[in-house]
Amino acid sequence: MLIVKKFGGTSVGTPERIMNVARRCVEDFSKGNDVVVVLSAMGKTTDELIHLAHRINQKPPKRELDMLMTTGEQVSVSLMAMAMDSLGVRAVSLNAFQVAMRTTSRYGDARLKRIDSDRILHELEDRKIVIVTGFQGINKYDDYTTLGRGGSDTTAVALAAALHADACEIYTDVDGVFTADPRICKRARKLKEITYDEMLDLASLGAGVLHNRSVEMAKKYGVTLVVRSSLNRSEGTILREETTVERMLISGVALDKSADRISVLGLKDRPGVAFRLFDIIAKANINIDVILQSIGRDGTKDISFTLPDENADEALEILEANKSRLQYQNIDVNKNVAKLSIVGSGMMSNPGVAAKMFEALYNEDININMISTSEIRVTVLIDTRDAERAVNAVHDAFGLDE
Amino acid sequence: MLIVKKFGGTSVGTPERIMNVARRCVEDFSKGNDVVVVLSAMGKTTDELIHLAHRINQKPPKRELDMLMTTGEQVSVSLMAMAMDSLGVRAVSLNAFQVAMRTTSRYGDARLKRIDSDRILHELEDRKIVIVTGFQGINKYDDYTTLGRGGSDTTAVALAAALHADACEIYTDVDGVFTADPRICKRARKLKEITYDEMLDLASLGAGVLHNRSVEMAKKYGVTLVVRSSLNRSEGTILREETTVERMLISGVALDKSADRISVLGLKDRPGVAFRLFDIIAKANINIDVILQSIGRDGTKDISFTLPDENADEALEILEANKSRLQYQNIDVNKNVAKLSIVGSGMMSNPGVAAKMFEALYNEDININMISTSEIRVTVLIDTRDAERAVNAVHDAFGLDE
Repeated sequence: MLIVKKFGGTSVGTPERIMNVARRCVEDFSKGNDVVVVLSAMGKTTDELIHLAHRINQKPPKRELDMLMTTGEQVSVSLMAMAMDSLGVRAVSLNAFQVAMRTTSRYGDARLKRIDSDRILHELEDRKIVIVTGFQGINKYDDYTTLGRGGSDTTAVALAAALHADACEIYTDVDGVFTADPRICKRARKLKEITYDEMLDLASLGAGVLHNRSVEMAKKYGVTLVVRSSLNRSEGTILREETTVERMLISGVALDKSADRISVLGLKDRPGVAFRLFDIIAKANINIDVILQSIGRDGTKDISFTLPDENADEALEILEANKSRLQYQNIDVNKNVAKLSIVGSGMMSNPGVAAKMFEALYNEDININMISTSEIRVTVLIDTRDAERAVNAVHDAFGLDE
Repeated sequence: MLIVKKFGGTSVGTPERIMNVARRCVEDFSKGNDVVVVLSAMGKTTDELIHLAHRINQKPPKRELDMLMTTGEQVSVSLMAMAMDSLGVRAVSLNAFQVAMRTTSRYGDARLKRIDSDRILHELEDRKIVIVTGFQGINKYDDYTTLGRGGSDTTAVALAAALHADACEIYTDVDGVFTADPRICKRARKLKEITYDEMLDLASLGAGVLHNRSVEMAKKYGVTLVVRSSLNRSEGTILREETTVERMLISGVALDKSADRISVLGLKDRPGVAFRLFDIIAKANINIDVILQSIGRDGTKDISFTLPDENADEALEILEANKSRLQYQNIDVNKNVAKLSIVGSGMMSNPGVAAKMFEALYNEDININMISTSEIRVTVLIDTRDAERAVNAVHDAFGLDE
């Protein structure tokens, strides 16, 4: 078997943890498997490097910031190779130049384009464990790039695809994907399996142990992903196209408390109003989320949308600056809202799912602010105060703890 | 003018110092010069990385140690580019892969073989300051190597040669090359010029602000070197093949207190004895220095040699382990010796130089232990207690303070 294993910054945060990860990899290697390890930078290294850069330049050029950041993973991989050597196993660390991990040009947020697998395959044939720097690549100018959020996961999935690996294991500090956040919902249960699409919805709804980009890539290339803990031996959660276990109605409940709601009230009820509004927001590079438009009445309509709370103030400023252009009456903001979602491929063939969720909330006397649905997801906006109670009520209503 | 400027770890040890160096480089750049900057790792970074490695593996594989160490210079160069950007100047940092700084294969102590100047020239044409990682290269396996002691100086000289630079400035924490160590000899004077050969002797005798390898390379490629201070604007010392100022009898007095003397007494006076002795020492990778062999008497002879004090104990162990093979009577060690040398191309045509030195020591009642000479150097071994008095006496005798 060829196994790609990815460990995040916390898992390699200290020399002791590096030794632990090394032992775990050597175990698989000693069973005769080929092992490729992808690592992030140690613990807080990335933050420290950014801090150092900012002491010199408040707005450092992105090319140079990537040049700086990529040293973080190089430190991790070389130390890991030393750790494996101390266990008597041959290992070799490789950075983005050595693999030839080609990306698009965009510094700080590049996309992987092409991985040259020759060097890795050559080292594997030589019976070495191969340790690759996550998060980084090189662009057509032969400059370092970084992959943005969740970058090391993406590196691991891309390598698994390029090498036709039998498994791609993402190690994290949780045991896998849960039916709800275990810190909120005591009866939350770890899922044995989940589909890529379900995971994508869960990830974008704030329950993500995995970043969407890596899940999308896994789906695209059919890479079977396993999310599991680096702290214990529990089996984790398997992500694939179709789950093999019997289909449950829903897979999980996700909660996102970081959303704010903005309502633009009294807009003219005529074509192009929504376009102008969201075009202005999009130009400021703000991602908006759930959108709801009221039915027009008295020649006016209201548009509400949610967005990450760190963008709320900027969005408000932009809207006020464009008041005359957008011609609305006023703006209402609610910062005390939470997004509660249920996700599951099962709901596609079960029309009663949304109603069941609403009933559970009604029984708890929880008011619903906005509703938005997709094929495998129902999202409601509720008051933050009700959030945790709501998660538990919905989790119970769908019998996710059984 | 194309100027290569090299700054060591102390000069880039903090964000403030990095800004200082940046300003100094930008000054030259703004006058219309092309500027290439070579940097070492920040302050204690290299030591810290080695310490981190040793926490994981007491004997880390050298390939992986180089992979780890090379991150140090990459941090320096990217931060320097950010500093120059903050001063409104375009700059680009390049590592050994990006330049294509090819070396021999040997990790930890590689030799530069070939520098590809295309990328650097292209960036210079684009009116950028180019900042290159010192000390590092890549070998034929596309693996990082490091150049060993004085590596960043070597990088700077090699780049100056490859780019046909008009000047190569080595910035350090002293003002230049002095006639003697100013901490010991108050009347020591900074030399305006010195020849490569003189510098080579001074460097190997412990007075080295420059490592021999970089001086040898400068000599080989005819690169005019300037050693100057990163702390002030003083002019520094120029190194070239022939000095243009009127030839002085000697250029400087060097003192090395780190030497020990070992005497092997009562060896059989027959061929092969010296060979066997030094072969055994060399196999332990110990560099010995001044060698003196007594004239044979009563069928036996004595051999004395000096060596760095950190190797003395190991050398003694080896000699005792080989007592029966070497057939000597006993060993005498003196750890309280100092090596005092005078260096100068002028002495080649002036036979009285050594005598003048001996006279100065005699006048101070300083006993000479051993004597060794080369074409442009006289070295004597004296008691450590006499060392500083001896430096001043010799310095005065040759009128180096005038």
